Amino acid sequence: MPDPVCIVGGTGALGFGLALRLGRAGVPIVIGSRDTTRAQEAADRARGRIPGGDFSGHENSGAIQSAELVILTVPFRSQSETLTNLKPTLGEEHLVIDATVPLAAAVSGKATRTLGVWQGSAAQQAQEMVPEGVRVVSAFHTVSAALLTDLEHELDEDVLVCGNRREDKARVAELVDRLDGLRAVDCGPLEMARIVEQFTPLLISINVRNKVRAGIKITGLHP
Amino acid sequence: MPDPVCIVGGTGALGFGLALRLGRAGVPIVIGSRDTTRAQEAADRARGRIPGGDFSGHENSGAIQSAELVILTVPFRSQSETLTNLKPTLGEEHLVIDATVPLAAAVSGKATRTLGVWQGSAAQQAQEMVPEGVRVVSAFHTVSAALLTDLEHELDEDVLVCGNRREDKARVAELVDRLDGLRAVDCGPLEMARIVEQFTPLLISINVRNKVRAGIKITGLHP
Repeated sequence: MPDPVCIVGGTGALGFGLALRLGRAGVPIVIGSRDTTRAQEAADRARGRIPGGDFSGHENSGAIQSAELVILTVPFRSQSETLTNLKPTLGEEHLVIDATVPLAAAVSGKATRTLGVWQGSAAQQAQEMVPEGVRVVSAFHTVSAALLTDLEHELDEDVLVCGNRREDKARVAELVDRLDGLRAVDCGPLEMARIVEQFTPLLISINVRNKVRAGIKITGLHP
Repeated sequence: MPDPVCIVGGTGALGFGLALRLGRAGVPIVIGSRDTTRAQEAADRARGRIPGGDFSGHENSGAIQSAELVILTVPFRSQSETLTNLKPTLGEEHLVIDATVPLAAAVSGKATRTLGVWQGSAAQQAQEMVPEGVRVVSAFHTVSAALLTDLEHELDEDVLVCGNRREDKARVAELVDRLDGLRAVDCGPLEMARIVEQFTPLLISINVRNKVRAGIKITGLHP
């Protein structure tokens, strides 16, 4: 039985898409939301899509108590507040997988532009905000929420992973490998998230131009 | 007969690799260098690799007088000086294809990090520096110089193109399409170069980790 995964922001498009795909792969999913009712509704919806899937819904702080792996898929606007609220509950057992992208849309700017984050990236901001001993890995920025949610769609792209500890990245890679058509690529230390987070607005720009749902693949890697 | 292409910085690794591949595809190549002798030596070397290829070598200013398409493949350290020197010779007929990446290596920093460029990107710096009426398109940042130079290697990756005019990007795409295994992807206006230029340090980070020559491919596009 795979370790359970908590998705903070699991009622949003990306979080819900990941919940569906991971749930279908047999991973027990705890959907976290600020609002317990919304979390439970999302879990119900997920169960409707994946009969037999193990989905539950809780308020964020309660949700992360039942999983060591915590995927953070909240809008950049809410990242800091969410982490502040989670602080008392986050402990050394947790590995936070941050998928936040500092889109300028957070301040009514364009979704093809980003904001400068003082720490370098949203992931580094997360690392600064979590309690000592909690590790942060950055991943899942470039996979389209719509394609994840469309369970008929066969994915065929990479998940770019940044983090400071090899073991943490290996754990995330193991999770990614459960999802058909996705491959984890180790992009280096967490500071490289400042580059990977920029891929989302670029893909949005390509999407708009070509009316597609683009993703990223790294060429030249050994199969 | 395709239009000739001038490669300013064609004695460097990326410029020479592009010269070889384009020359093999039948494009007349003018290699530009600050030093005429080095430019001519590079043209001789290219002719040795591609018998029958149309290669010549000139000092930069002379070189760009024989081609409307100018690919700029100089280190970031030299970009500004090179453009200042080219200014009197650049005219409205020219389309500058900038491949400059502001790697921190320019100031003895890491090749997995970049410098902040006041204008947003090296390409936007180039656009600010060229005379009124000269258009700049950004491209060719993510293709490995070593793989271009290894003519046995079958390329299979994308060239991410940013620019403000659709016609200019179409002209660059036409050039890219001459190269087997490369596909041009329109990434939006020139300002998106600030994102695309970051891909090079990320690929360098992936290369170091995996002992490969990685490239980028955008998934989900119509074939």
